[in-house]
Amino acid sequence: MTKIVLSVNAGSSSVKISVFSVASRGAEPRQLAEAQVNGLTAPPPQLDYRRTEDGGKSTTVYKDEPVTTIKIGNGRDNANIKSQDDAFAFLLQLFVDDEKLNAIRSHDDIAIVTHRIVHGGDYNQPQIVVGDTYAHLEALNDLAPLHNATSLEIVRSCLKQLPKATNVACFDSQFHATLPLHIRTYPIDPKIAKSNMLRKYGFHGLSYAFITRAVAESLDKKVEDTSIIALHLGSGASACAIRNGKSWDTSMGLTPLAGLPGATRSGSVDPSLVFHYASDVGRLAPASTSDLHISRAEEILNKEAGWKALTGTTNFGAIAAAGSDKPDHQLAFDLFVDRVCGFVGSYYVSLGGKVDALVFAGGIGERSDRLRQAVVEQCACLGFAIDGAANKEAGHAAGTVTDLTAKSGSRHQVLVCRTDEQLEMAREGSAEEGLWKS
Amino acid sequence: MTKIVLSVNAGSSSVKISVFSVASRGAEPRQLAEAQVNGLTAPPPQLDYRRTEDGGKSTTVYKDEPVTTIKIGNGRDNANIKSQDDAFAFLLQLFVDDEKLNAIRSHDDIAIVTHRIVHGGDYNQPQIVVGDTYAHLEALNDLAPLHNATSLEIVRSCLKQLPKATNVACFDSQFHATLPLHIRTYPIDPKIAKSNMLRKYGFHGLSYAFITRAVAESLDKKVEDTSIIALHLGSGASACAIRNGKSWDTSMGLTPLAGLPGATRSGSVDPSLVFHYASDVGRLAPASTSDLHISRAEEILNKEAGWKALTGTTNFGAIAAAGSDKPDHQLAFDLFVDRVCGFVGSYYVSLGGKVDALVFAGGIGERSDRLRQAVVEQCACLGFAIDGAANKEAGHAAGTVTDLTAKSGSRHQVLVCRTDEQLEMAREGSAEEGLWKS
Repeated sequence: MTKIVLSVNAGSSSVKISVFSVASRGAEPRQLAEAQVNGLTAPPPQLDYRRTEDGGKSTTVYKDEPVTTIKIGNGRDNANIKSQDDAFAFLLQLFVDDEKLNAIRSHDDIAIVTHRIVHGGDYNQPQIVVGDTYAHLEALNDLAPLHNATSLEIVRSCLKQLPKATNVACFDSQFHATLPLHIRTYPIDPKIAKSNMLRKYGFHGLSYAFITRAVAESLDKKVEDTSIIALHLGSGASACAIRNGKSWDTSMGLTPLAGLPGATRSGSVDPSLVFHYASDVGRLAPASTSDLHISRAEEILNKEAGWKALTGTTNFGAIAAAGSDKPDHQLAFDLFVDRVCGFVGSYYVSLGGKVDALVFAGGIGERSDRLRQAVVEQCACLGFAIDGAANKEAGHAAGTVTDLTAKSGSRHQVLVCRTDEQLEMAREGSAEEGLWKS
Repeated sequence: MTKIVLSVNAGSSSVKISVFSVASRGAEPRQLAEAQVNGLTAPPPQLDYRRTEDGGKSTTVYKDEPVTTIKIGNGRDNANIKSQDDAFAFLLQLFVDDEKLNAIRSHDDIAIVTHRIVHGGDYNQPQIVVGDTYAHLEALNDLAPLHNATSLEIVRSCLKQLPKATNVACFDSQFHATLPLHIRTYPIDPKIAKSNMLRKYGFHGLSYAFITRAVAESLDKKVEDTSIIALHLGSGASACAIRNGKSWDTSMGLTPLAGLPGATRSGSVDPSLVFHYASDVGRLAPASTSDLHISRAEEILNKEAGWKALTGTTNFGAIAAAGSDKPDHQLAFDLFVDRVCGFVGSYYVSLGGKVDALVFAGGIGERSDRLRQAVVEQCACLGFAIDGAANKEAGHAAGTVTDLTAKSGSRHQVLVCRTDEQLEMAREGSAEEGLWKS
């Protein structure tokens, strides 16, 4: 009955696929392999590929390897991998050709493909993609053209390339379906809000679902008794107040633009700012197509802002390491810490102080001890304190959740969680009873 | 040496003038009269006029009186009071004609006119309006056309009508000149930010300056030792973190749109929301003129949103009183409390918990005990607690600052401050040494 599940996650210049086996409905997915094509916008793209052997030992097969040097599919030329869809086809062939990946001998061995879709509108659970769902997903493109379009391309090609597999759409917004009315509502004309689907949706939900479960387990609490402030900090960054296991508030909004700044994203700024930034920001951006309408304003705020705009680099690690000898880096660091702490304070009040833990996750949250230190120190007045040594060592710690709480003087836990959206997708995407009947 | 000082405050459909006498440089202004024309956009406009007799006793001369029924200026017809400028001329004549207002017998008795200008750009103190200043103020109109234009019209007409008076521009942004770099910076292209003057400015500064001074006095502390979280909540609403007497952070931004919702203002929403609200929001609004460019987006977010959009009324008192039998009112109330508490939590962390008091001010902050109760209860986890009886009675309390702190269990004070922007303007506008040399 074991099924092979692929979790597909398309970014703006990358495609990542994790391969899992799931022994039965509800069983924990076991990772078999993980492959990622990066740099689609800076050719040649490069491949990372790790295989997980029996016993969980991980083997790196390729690391930063230009795809053009890799011979797969009977010597097929890999010079033309330009789109996410090309990368997807390439990775599928990689799995089939890898003789040590026994579980995938042909396309037909793949039972379920889960797709990370950023904007799920009102969907509050994963959706098996059949005709109607696909049409509905295309309609959601209007709300998040910058974020959904690529994933949908892959769904479309998957329906062709893997006709025997079941495609499941997993939404980054679905975890936030529980936001209460007064928090998800914008103070605007309710009729227009309804007809145009304008409300706070929130994103990074696959990550927050994973974090909530993992933290509850590490605290030895039930999920429904667990309340945390979670920070998913990466090139896209957000915060989430999780009350009794459910999303209560989150910093992203109608789109992922709102809330915290990101690598190239402004986060929340005065909504009139962009009209003073450039003239005619309402016109369509050059990146628009006949199907996808992206205003110049959305392009400026999503692609030309953030810490890249302040410092010239998207690499937050370099920014955090720079310190005060690079004033623009220091400014970007201080600004980010300030905005993050603002949400911690805000959500602390929103949760009435009933907070089991402050949890750091995402590329920056998991890797930057300087960022964690700065945030927790600023939040000392809320009763958080960090253990300096544990914080520095956190990158080397085993396990999913690492405790950084100071040995004394902290009223709440401080944790790092190695989040895994791919695993969460495999879990959620294989949970549907109907998938296990055949 | 006593000088008569007028404080002029033009709103979107009103003009308010307070008359003060100032005995010497730095002396506390003493109010002689206060007059306001309301309803310029819903004719006939109405007059409120109070005179303050010797000894501080206040006499209501007119209350909600249609201006058309008032005979002043030798029976001049008042049927044509349509603009803020008309109202200003009318009020000047009212003061001259009022025989009981001895201090103003003719226009020449007015020594100083202070004008509330919302957006002061980089000005960090009041400016005496001479040629260059006026040109610079006009340039600032581009940043805040919806907010500055009316005040500037009155400055212009004042220069003509009161040629012997000194005009002083007092800026609602100047109190926030102390915002630290990492808080006032937006994460956008620094070159464009610089050339287009894009940063957080903050507003309601005249009110916050008044509040800071009054609260310091009531706490018997020096201003520079006083740290508070102040809430100016009215049809425009904002929050301010004041650290050691200086503005450290505030919720409004480049313009008054950012931050908290207001009567017709959205406050901070996903910056891409407006592009999904209506098509072509970048085009000029019908209200634009050849000099003043207002995008349709700015009009939607400033004039067609807020609790009016949710409930149909701008009257927050009615919203707070309605309770749960009117779900749209309850939603607007809960939403506002949530957003206010978010800033309290955020600023509590930003101030490192060193907060002498949480201070309510502005029309809603001073009048709505239900709002104050809800906010303080939500913020209990930060160590704030309110005295229910004192809170209910606060509207009837004498004095500028009223203490609502619970008799036990509150780690910080909870205060109401009857703020007075007009008095602050008279103070700041008459402080310049040069004004007292003649």
